[in-house]
Amino acid sequence: MKNYFSVNDIDSVSNWISEANDLKKNPGAHSELGKNKTLGLLFFNPSLRTRLSTQKAALNLGMNVMVMNFTGEGWALEFDDGTVMDQGASEHIKEAAQVISQYCDILAIRAFATLENKDDDYNEKVLKGFIKYASIPILNMESATGHPLQALTDAITINQFQAKKRPKVVLSWAPHPKALPQAVANSFAAIAQRLEVDFVVTHPKGYELQDEIVGASNIEYDQDKALKDADFVYVKNWSSYQQYGKILETDMSWRISQEKIAATNKAKVMHCLPVRRNVVIDDAVLDSESSIVIEQANNRTFAAQLVLQKLLKANCQE
Amino acid sequence: MKNYFSVNDIDSVSNWISEANDLKKNPGAHSELGKNKTLGLLFFNPSLRTRLSTQKAALNLGMNVMVMNFTGEGWALEFDDGTVMDQGASEHIKEAAQVISQYCDILAIRAFATLENKDDDYNEKVLKGFIKYASIPILNMESATGHPLQALTDAITINQFQAKKRPKVVLSWAPHPKALPQAVANSFAAIAQRLEVDFVVTHPKGYELQDEIVGASNIEYDQDKALKDADFVYVKNWSSYQQYGKILETDMSWRISQEKIAATNKAKVMHCLPVRRNVVIDDAVLDSESSIVIEQANNRTFAAQLVLQKLLKANCQE
Amino acid sequence: MKNYFSVNDIDSVSNWISEANDLKKNPGAHSELGKNKTLGLLFFNPSLRTRLSTQKAALNLGMNVMVMNFTGEGWALEFDDGTVMDQGASEHIKEAAQVISQYCDILAIRAFATLENKDDDYNEKVLKGFIKYASIPILNMESATGHPLQALTDAITINQFQAKKRPKVVLSWAPHPKALPQAVANSFAAIAQRLEVDFVVTHPKGYELQDEIVGASNIEYDQDKALKDADFVYVKNWSSYQQYGKILETDMSWRISQEKIAATNKAKVMHCLPVRRNVVIDDAVLDSESSIVIEQANNRTFAAQLVLQKLLKANCQE
Repeated sequence: MKNYFSVNDIDSVSNWISEANDLKKNPGAHSELGKNKTLGLLFFNPSLRTRLSTQKAALNLGMNVMVMNFTGEGWALEFDDGTVMDQGASEHIKEAAQVISQYCDILAIRAFATLENKDDDYNEKVLKGFIKYASIPILNMESATGHPLQALTDAITINQFQAKKRPKVVLSWAPHPKALPQAVANSFAAIAQRLEVDFVVTHPKGYELQDEIVGASNIEYDQDKALKDADFVYVKNWSSYQQYGKILETDMSWRISQEKIAATNKAKVMHCLPVRRNVVIDDAVLDSESSIVIEQANNRTFAAQLVLQKLLKANCQE
Repeated sequence: MKNYFSVNDIDSVSNWISEANDLKKNPGAHSELGKNKTLGLLFFNPSLRTRLSTQKAALNLGMNVMVMNFTGEGWALEFDDGTVMDQGASEHIKEAAQVISQYCDILAIRAFATLENKDDDYNEKVLKGFIKYASIPILNMESATGHPLQALTDAITINQFQAKKRPKVVLSWAPHPKALPQAVANSFAAIAQRLEVDFVVTHPKGYELQDEIVGASNIEYDQDKALKDADFVYVKNWSSYQQYGKILETDMSWRISQEKIAATNKAKVMHCLPVRRNVVIDDAVLDSESSIVIEQANNRTFAAQLVLQKLLKANCQE
Repeated sequence: MKNYFSVNDIDSVSNWISEANDLKKNPGAHSELGKNKTLGLLFFNPSLRTRLSTQKAALNLGMNVMVMNFTGEGWALEFDDGTVMDQGASEHIKEAAQVISQYCDILAIRAFATLENKDDDYNEKVLKGFIKYASIPILNMESATGHPLQALTDAITINQFQAKKRPKVVLSWAPHPKALPQAVANSFAAIAQRLEVDFVVTHPKGYELQDEIVGASNIEYDQDKALKDADFVYVKNWSSYQQYGKILETDMSWRISQEKIAATNKAKVMHCLPVRRNVVIDDAVLDSESSIVIEQANNRTFAAQLVLQKLLKANCQE
């Protein structure tokens, strides 16, 4: 594995889950692996869980960490080729990626979708730019179209809480006051289809994710039907992919309430966080035993640590 | 000690001073205590001394440190229960505190008074919210109503410089162009009353600190009378508690000048810093041997280290 | 060496180059030297290469690093003496420098020219203020008038790529949409004159650097004449020193194109980065084998490490 760019970089989801479970029992077992290796964290967007859990994972491996918030501490980058750079951007990604590669052993990057230009976002201008020009492994800390560290976390969490061999897993859209990227939903849908689960996505019409990721067979537009007998409900808002970046629906009845959970098979409720209470999920649900969002967030550390271990082993051994 | 929230968490001020003095002689003596332990630093406000001295203290103990500036690197938190979170805040403290607790062993937080809502500030919405929901020890790096790391530093500093058994210690208000919180004055007044000193507070009428903290007997409205025979003058501006957050007085004659110090018993001048020269204290005083503000700032490291050691020993031993 | 403020602090450029080359072969050779020593990095301006390479250098030496972005995480400092500080600045450099000296072993500072006040800039108000009041070594990470870590890097890079005993080195001004400081050009010109090279500076009239630094004999106003037979072309924009901070020339024909390089002796092209492509240097040049800007940036780590080693050895041994 050269980079961890998407869930497609996971060769065996079940093996990775099993390795992450081992690692969770003994996080310090490989504290020599990262010695004298440096992880660079580049943030083009805010971050809490990813910022702290990825650092924690690196520390567990004995790595050094250098954090850079690109906006604020740095300057605007240019991503297009051939531009006459007489406007806002001071540096081209060609130089930035090559240079940073010389100071770090692994480079983790967060760069959200802009939701302004579908092509730029779905071509992964920023992450693919770094992958193209960097000479070290790139770790995706949420890009325009995916959040594979979160998806690996989610797979670990479903495994941790599943009570039956083949649970029903529902990804449910929920309302939100702001237009959000599809990244988390994309990566969760992609990994869910590789798990031994019955996977259903439910959302209002117009919120279909990219065809290649979900496929028509998994969509149920009636949320009540979708939630019936669910063992896991993964709640997440996203903006429209078709009418790119638009909010098409504000119907608060899509909000996850106790009544909706009552109709499931005592489903466990998941969310990547941050979650807006009483907009996306009700207090009554989040404060009940149905919610496993805190345990889910805890698994972020071990997902990140597993990926860092694999990147170190594959790329950074002398 | 579960948390270090206020000076009330100090069981014996004299013992702590003595332990801090030992530690100052050999800061690396406990460099194994914090091994594989992680201190999270959360800043909701700017910081220089606290930021650097608390990190340094953690490094002296062999701890890892992760710093997060909540504004800028993160997003707005919601602190009230039951809110429909469809406005600015993206995450509730319930989730934030529980999640961060899983990535760190101790969590240090700075969250100043807003000076807009006395109840919110004096109920310590932010710090008490974290204490309520976090599962790890919380260390106060200045909250709405108190700055107990500073107060412990101040006690250590008075002990270091006191020339007589029972010195006279005066906390003097001074003018300032901006409305400042009462936190430093509150914590200093609280700890000063537990020291073997004669403690007097002087300020213009209307600047009384919260009753429970100071008590009428310690107030002297005439600054000249208060300063007479003082061995230590602790200078600090704060805004009105009664007319909450207001600036009631701009009389520059409250400024600490050489003339005022001349009327004391060769008093040592203290200030928590940053200090506005020639507004709060004159150049002539700060640049004289009367001033011990630099030595005082040095003690910040050892106050923080002592508190971290105690939190580690009480909460983080396997 | 008490501080590394300018290239004048380098006692022997050739020895330093040779030491840096040794260190580059084995960056971890002195990983115990910085043990229990703390490097503070203070940024008054954005930084990418300097931020990361200086941290990396410190990590190679086993040092702890504390980073502080003064704007954003801190507050405005006052640098003038005797000011009544009732305006924007909350803290005087006298206190800041003395206090930070107590938390760190070496303090690295970036503070660009404001380009508003020539005297303030060329008196190095910020860096010289820290040097005056700090009690620990100060490392210049680019100040108003110089960037000596860059210049040392540049000397190492010329040595690495020189094919003849006495190469011709040309510092060429190039256009830029923003007014930039003279710091990089100043330090490069200063160090180039201490190398065994034929050194020429070329720029439009009005862009003369400070007399003491370059001297009239090295200036050639005709860029084509200057570039003829050049072995190295160091490209950099700067604003006018005489008409301080002004942009006097926007003639794009000064841009470094393949045609211009064709007229040299297959010159290697250098730039401190970030570089605006197709404004300062053309894509065709940067993407050709002529460009050594990436290798040059790599040497930043070893220049910083060499300087840190020297500061540690001279100042921080118990």
